[in-house]
Formats: sequence, structure tokens, C-alpha cells
Amino acid sequence: MEIIRIPKIMQATAKGHLVRGRTIGFVPTMGALHDGHLSLVRRARQENDLTAVSIFVNPIQFSPAEDFQGYPRDIEVDTGKLLKEQVDILFMPDTKAMYPGGFLTHIEVEQISERLCGAFRPGHFRGVATVVAKLFHIVLPKRAYFGQKDYQQTRVIKRMTRDLDMDIEITVCPTVREKDGLAMSSRNAYLSAEQKRSAAVLFRCLSEAAASLESGIIRVQDITRGMQQILRDEPAITEVQYAGLFDPVTLGEIHEIGGDALLAIAVKMGDTRLIDNMLVMMKKER
Amino acid sequence: MEIIRIPKIMQATAKGHLVRGRTIGFVPTMGALHDGHLSLVRRARQENDLTAVSIFVNPIQFSPAEDFQGYPRDIEVDTGKLLKEQVDILFMPDTKAMYPGGFLTHIEVEQISERLCGAFRPGHFRGVATVVAKLFHIVLPKRAYFGQKDYQQTRVIKRMTRDLDMDIEITVCPTVREKDGLAMSSRNAYLSAEQKRSAAVLFRCLSEAAASLESGIIRVQDITRGMQQILRDEPAITEVQYAGLFDPVTLGEIHEIGGDALLAIAVKMGDTRLIDNMLVMMKKER
Repeated sequence: MEIIRIPKIMQATAKGHLVRGRTIGFVPTMGALHDGHLSLVRRARQENDLTAVSIFVNPIQFSPAEDFQGYPRDIEVDTGKLLKEQVDILFMPDTKAMYPGGFLTHIEVEQISERLCGAFRPGHFRGVATVVAKLFHIVLPKRAYFGQKDYQQTRVIKRMTRDLDMDIEITVCPTVREKDGLAMSSRNAYLSAEQKRSAAVLFRCLSEAAASLESGIIRVQDITRGMQQILRDEPAITEVQYAGLFDPVTLGEIHEIGGDALLAIAVKMGDTRLIDNMLVMMKKER
Repeated sequence: MEIIRIPKIMQATAKGHLVRGRTIGFVPTMGALHDGHLSLVRRARQENDLTAVSIFVNPIQFSPAEDFQGYPRDIEVDTGKLLKEQVDILFMPDTKAMYPGGFLTHIEVEQISERLCGAFRPGHFRGVATVVAKLFHIVLPKRAYFGQKDYQQTRVIKRMTRDLDMDIEITVCPTVREKDGLAMSSRNAYLSAEQKRSAAVLFRCLSEAAASLESGIIRVQDITRGMQQILRDEPAITEVQYAGLFDPVTLGEIHEIGGDALLAIAVKMGDTRLIDNMLVMMKKER
């Protein structure tokens, strides 16, 4: 595994592969790798000649009040995991290489960046879109892989690549879960053993809402109310930021049953913010 | 000359050349081509294996009150000129191909977009940055060529390509002028014969300011005052939007002599907006 820290060297390496007709599959990460990340890496390996992973904790997607400083970092363990997965290139730039003095450019994907998590994390998806565009220009992948757990992020990135005519295929892979259903996340490391047990309620809440839809509860407000109730009944949850049914493309609220829908949740457990989601197909007639 | 109208086809064509190791030199234009544009085309031909020109009047860089509808268009004359210059590819997309339904993404280069023309044309450079990024992703050039007449535009694009790690060399070519010094511009077509004669005052104003700096006038406010006076003495000028000395990198106002400076002007003659600029080197000690 080649470890590259300098953007220009990464770009020259990628160009060398491109002119030889080799495709690069790319998994951008912030490190603290778990089985969710590794599932993306495996998919990238299957579908491309080379697999590149980046580890970069992107400061501009954190607001000043958020956990940039404390975000889990364990480069040695991460490197070991990527070696085992036979990753070809690990791109690991430092902050100054990515944001040198005089940096002034940002990419904004309107509307879908402002909803759901965007309403609670102003500027977050602007930071995500900007760093992902930079990484795409540096790593020059044919395909890039993202986890469905960060559903809104996948919508922002798909919209950006399409709107800016980037010739990159965005693949969204299923959320990888613990046995009790908890979605894998680097931020789960913040949870105490007890909080972690309680956090399984997110998946239970999504599953019950999906089951209700299946069984014929067809009023959106009943679904939403049921979800909110399940989350409020869990004492470890200190705040429910959102929980309900959303349009999977616009991320706007759904008022009527019909078509596909996104069940999505964001809660806080103390200082830790947890999100999860599930895509469901709602039949209008039952 | 290959004429391509579909972004995906342009991109596939460009990729075909790239994998064969051929370099593309790119001149993005809004058409109504004059000798300024053609000087860029000639430079691109000298320095690259292939030359691509785009003609696209970009709606998102015009505000509702501006001249998008009336902007001069003459595709047959333009095509003839490009044929004569032996351009290899003319990319000529329509608006729907560039901005299909659901378009939501914009690129913002802060600070330098807000100054000079940006203060009078809010959103203009956001529209410029966005379309140029799109065109770069579609045409995949190694080098792109812009005229110095639109100096602020060149700064915005240089900053964007650097900040977003685009592997494209931005070359700025000298302003091409009429015999009387008037900078060539597609918008000169809006001027009456009399206005066109009067418009030579912009170049005279810049030249006199440059001469004053050469001759040792070292107070910024004297230079600025002299420029404003020359422009106000020309009855055809109905508004002086700005005229003075600016920092060539930040585009902020200069208060002290020393280093490089940008002499820049924007005026209106009736409904027509005219800009011009000159780069000068100011010596601190004389």
C-alpha cells in the first residue's frame, strides 16, 4: 500500500494510472475506520483496477462548537485495516496541504444541504461538498463509495457531481450494523457501554415505522408520532432533532403516503449526535 | 472543426484525447468573438495538441436586470472565425444541457468575488465560477486561456482552480485594443459610433494614471482623483462605478504606494457597462 501525503503527488500518481487506462475506486473517509468503511473498500476493490482510500478529518465541515478536535483518530489501527483489505493507495494529507493560506472557495448545494442535519449543522454540507470536490480532483476516481448511513451526504454529493458535470459514479452502499441494529459510526466510540445499548433504539424505531407502513398505517402523522414516542421513551436520548418521513430526493417533509420515502432520525445522547435512516417503499393502495 | 453540443459527448471526446496523451487548450467564451478571443485561441494552439473553444452565453452570471437576452449572438460569423483559426473542437451546448431541471450547485470564491465589479453585479462571479468549473469538467483541458480585460474574472478562476485542486493551468493573455486604445469587448457592439469614440477615454485614463505613477506622483489619492476627473469630464459617461488603484491579488483598495498595483475602471455609457484595467509596478523610492 502506497501512502501519499502530498496532494500534487497523489494527483500525479492518479494521472499515471489514468493514462494507462486503469480505473480508480475511491473511498473518502475521516478515519476511525469500522466495518462500514471496510464494506465500501471491498466494493471498490471488486469494481475497479485500483482502490484508493483517503483519511482526512476535514475541519471545514465541523462548526466551532462541534467535535473536530476530539474526533477519534487512530492512524495505526486504520492503516492495519486497510493493508489487510489490500488497498492500493492511502491518501492522508494534512490540513495545511488541503487548506493553504488564502483559501477562499466553497461549493454549496442549495436546498438539500439546508434540510435534516443541515438545519442543525449550518455549513456542514458546504464543507463536505467542498472537500469531496477537492478529493475528487486529487484522486481522479472513476467511482466513489459512500455509506447510506450518511444519507443526506450521499444526496449532496450526487447532486454536486451531476450539477458540476464531474465524470464520477457515486455508489451508495448499505449501512453496516451491530448485531443489535446500531448503525456503525466512528462517533459510536464516544458512547458509554450503557449509551451504546440504548442507542439500538434508533434502529428499532426505524424498523417499527417501516413495519407500520407495511401493515397499512397510512397516515404520515401517525408514523411520525410513533417514531417520536419511541425515541422520547428512551431516557438516554437527551434531544430528538428530527424523526420522521422525508422525500428521498428533495429531503423535504412528506405529507402524503405514496412512492419511496426516507425514514430518518437524528438524536443526541449527551454530547454525542447519532443519526440513522431507512429507505422504504410506500404503497398508496393496500 | 468538430462541433459538439452535448456535454457527455464533449466529455467522452476529451477523455479519448487524454488517454492518448494529447493535451487540450481551452478558450471558454460567450461568443460574439473579436480579436481578443482570437488571440487566446492562437495562444492555445501554440501550446497544446488540440484547441477547444466553447460558446455559451451563461444565464447564471447575469442578474435579472442585465443583458442576457440581448447579449450579442452571431454563431455563423463566430464559427467562420474559429474555422479560420483551425480550432479543433467547438463546444456549443444549449442552456438546458448545462442547467437541467433540479440544478442546485454553486461555487463561491469569497472576498475577491465581492469587490470591484462584484459589488455592482451581485452573484456574477458565482455564476462565472460555477460555469467555468462545469466547462473544465466537460472539456478536460490541460490549459485554459482568459483575457486580462476581465481581470477580476481571471483572479476568481485562478483562485478556484487552486483551491479545488483542479489540475489546469490558467493563462492570462494581454488585452487586445482598438487603435485608439479601446479594449475589445463583445459589449462594444452596444455602443453608437459616437459613444465608441468617447470610450477611448478609459484607456487614456489608465495610461495617464500609469504615467503619473512613473513620473513620481506617489499619493494614491492623487492618482484616484485624477482618474475620476478624466472620466467625469467625458460627457458620454453616465456613471463611474469605480476607478482607482487596487491590490492585484486581493482586489482590495490600495492606500500606500509600493509593489504591484491594478489600475481598474468600470463606467456606464447609457445602458452599456464598460470595464478596463492595467497592471503597473509602483516603486516605493524614486
